[in-house]
Amino acid sequence: MHEVVELKNYRIDNLQYCNWSKDIFKLNHEAALDAIHVTIAYHEDFDEVQKNIKEWEGYFNDFSELIIHGKSYLDIEKAKLENKTAVFFGFQNCSPIEDDINLVEAVHQMGAVFMQLTYNNQSLLATGCYEEVDSGVTRMGREVIREMNRVGVIVDMSHSAEKSTFDAINFSEKPIAITHANPTFWHAAKRNKSNDLLKALGDSGGMLGLSLYPHHLLDGTNCTLDSFCLMAAKTAEIMGTENIGIGSDLCLEQPDAVVDWMRNGTWTRAKDFGEGSASNPSFPKQPSWFQDARGFSNLAKGLKEVGFSDNEAQGILGNNWFNFYKDYIN
Amino acid sequence: MHEVVELKNYRIDNLQYCNWSKDIFKLNHEAALDAIHVTIAYHEDFDEVQKNIKEWEGYFNDFSELIIHGKSYLDIEKAKLENKTAVFFGFQNCSPIEDDINLVEAVHQMGAVFMQLTYNNQSLLATGCYEEVDSGVTRMGREVIREMNRVGVIVDMSHSAEKSTFDAINFSEKPIAITHANPTFWHAAKRNKSNDLLKALGDSGGMLGLSLYPHHLLDGTNCTLDSFCLMAAKTAEIMGTENIGIGSDLCLEQPDAVVDWMRNGTWTRAKDFGEGSASNPSFPKQPSWFQDARGFSNLAKGLKEVGFSDNEAQGILGNNWFNFYKDYIN
Repeated sequence: MHEVVELKNYRIDNLQYCNWSKDIFKLNHEAALDAIHVTIAYHEDFDEVQKNIKEWEGYFNDFSELIIHGKSYLDIEKAKLENKTAVFFGFQNCSPIEDDINLVEAVHQMGAVFMQLTYNNQSLLATGCYEEVDSGVTRMGREVIREMNRVGVIVDMSHSAEKSTFDAINFSEKPIAITHANPTFWHAAKRNKSNDLLKALGDSGGMLGLSLYPHHLLDGTNCTLDSFCLMAAKTAEIMGTENIGIGSDLCLEQPDAVVDWMRNGTWTRAKDFGEGSASNPSFPKQPSWFQDARGFSNLAKGLKEVGFSDNEAQGILGNNWFNFYKDYIN
Repeated sequence: MHEVVELKNYRIDNLQYCNWSKDIFKLNHEAALDAIHVTIAYHEDFDEVQKNIKEWEGYFNDFSELIIHGKSYLDIEKAKLENKTAVFFGFQNCSPIEDDINLVEAVHQMGAVFMQLTYNNQSLLATGCYEEVDSGVTRMGREVIREMNRVGVIVDMSHSAEKSTFDAINFSEKPIAITHANPTFWHAAKRNKSNDLLKALGDSGGMLGLSLYPHHLLDGTNCTLDSFCLMAAKTAEIMGTENIGIGSDLCLEQPDAVVDWMRNGTWTRAKDFGEGSASNPSFPKQPSWFQDARGFSNLAKGLKEVGFSDNEAQGILGNNWFNFYKDYIN
């Protein structure tokens, strides 16, 4: 019996954007991750995303002993059985659909499971969290949400501003996700989310992936495991334990040129430092207890220490995302 | 002496989007237009605009007895001397620069003189007049305005929402234009502009091109010349006679499929009727006194009848736009 029960506990990291290599897939394997959601677009347009997918096809081919391409929740079960990691594609921006609603179905067919309506800036669909004023989901945004619901691409509002996120929750017929962010009550980063928003997200059946990216953490790199897990407990009180998962935002082995590109794309000729600053422009260092996905074992201990039951902790570490995937992509 | 004075009076229609043909260039020639600003993009991206420019190169070649390509205000003088019409390019949307600020310089080199920051919807740069909420000029919008100022592309806010337009006036180091719209006090169309905005536009040295498009006119197709010219007189009181010109928005010989595309582009799978309606989806009919650009002669009479001096009327009919071009593109 023990083995059957174990089989039902999934470990999922619902946001990674690493400089992919066999070594990193091995780290995820050592961490026993059954699934990861990986970012394959920040600023890329439709054609550029296709190039990124070609690259992923190479990874699936070259590292078939470690990863499989995730398209349905069944691939998470399959990956677990085969002792591999299912890799699901997502976009952190709507740039891949350009200004064409018909591309929503096209990117879905290419494997896109999640799409943020905005990165940090205003998009054609909604407002990003770095804009001064948030006008909410736009005319095109409403249409695209309807189309995403129809074809089965999950709305992700991790980098979006507050009104836009409330609008997305309200306009979407299906629950939405915030794949990687933390609550503002814990650390008031622009990217983090208010209690009211988290409550609305939970009430609507949506999911929050707690982020391990230092700019989203209280005390940054020096954040303690205990502080993180206490934050998880308070967040669970606000939005329900079953609506919380992990979206680590791990950016392993990325050169600083990548964070510079993530922040600046081609939208400015000046230099934007995003969550960093001119004196601190680099990717931040991970906390000691979450250097990579193997830190999931620390999270498992930490969550229980702050009072989560075994079931609740397993939910946060993967089962909640698994259930969300099961409802959405089947 | 008479001829020299005449030479200094220009006739300019600062917005046309016709189904171009020799016949239409002839109508503009009969109307003695020295310059027109033509729309070469509504939803087109960078590559698609290049195709449109190729088409225009064909027109300049085939109809060289009627038109020349306008790149500087000097081309308006040249066209007048040669009894031709100088054609200046503009975009009614920022779609040709996609999400890349570096394309501003590229489109300028391709001949773009005007660029709207938005068509009716939200863009990456600003909010269009059909959105429910106007967040103003975005982070990318500020950067792009600076770049447009640097390379010499004129900001056009004809289809933009109010806060966005105020922002553009404030952020732009050079005066901006509203190439084709009318005042709201006369006809409260979404596309028309408030007195406060017109005053700010005039105070900043910007230009308003009065529109002859029936949806922008009091009583639409049945609008009278007298009503139009009285509106011009009141507008002049608000923003200064020298800041007013004509931007007729003539869409001669366009099939209804074009207005459908202008309104819907690829942003919705539903049908949007813009300024029309389900029962009235077509291009509207022009008023009897402005069937085409030859109506400029009616405007000349009408403006004088409502009290404009000869100099003021000549300003509105072209000299004001000429002076604006002279300051901007030289």
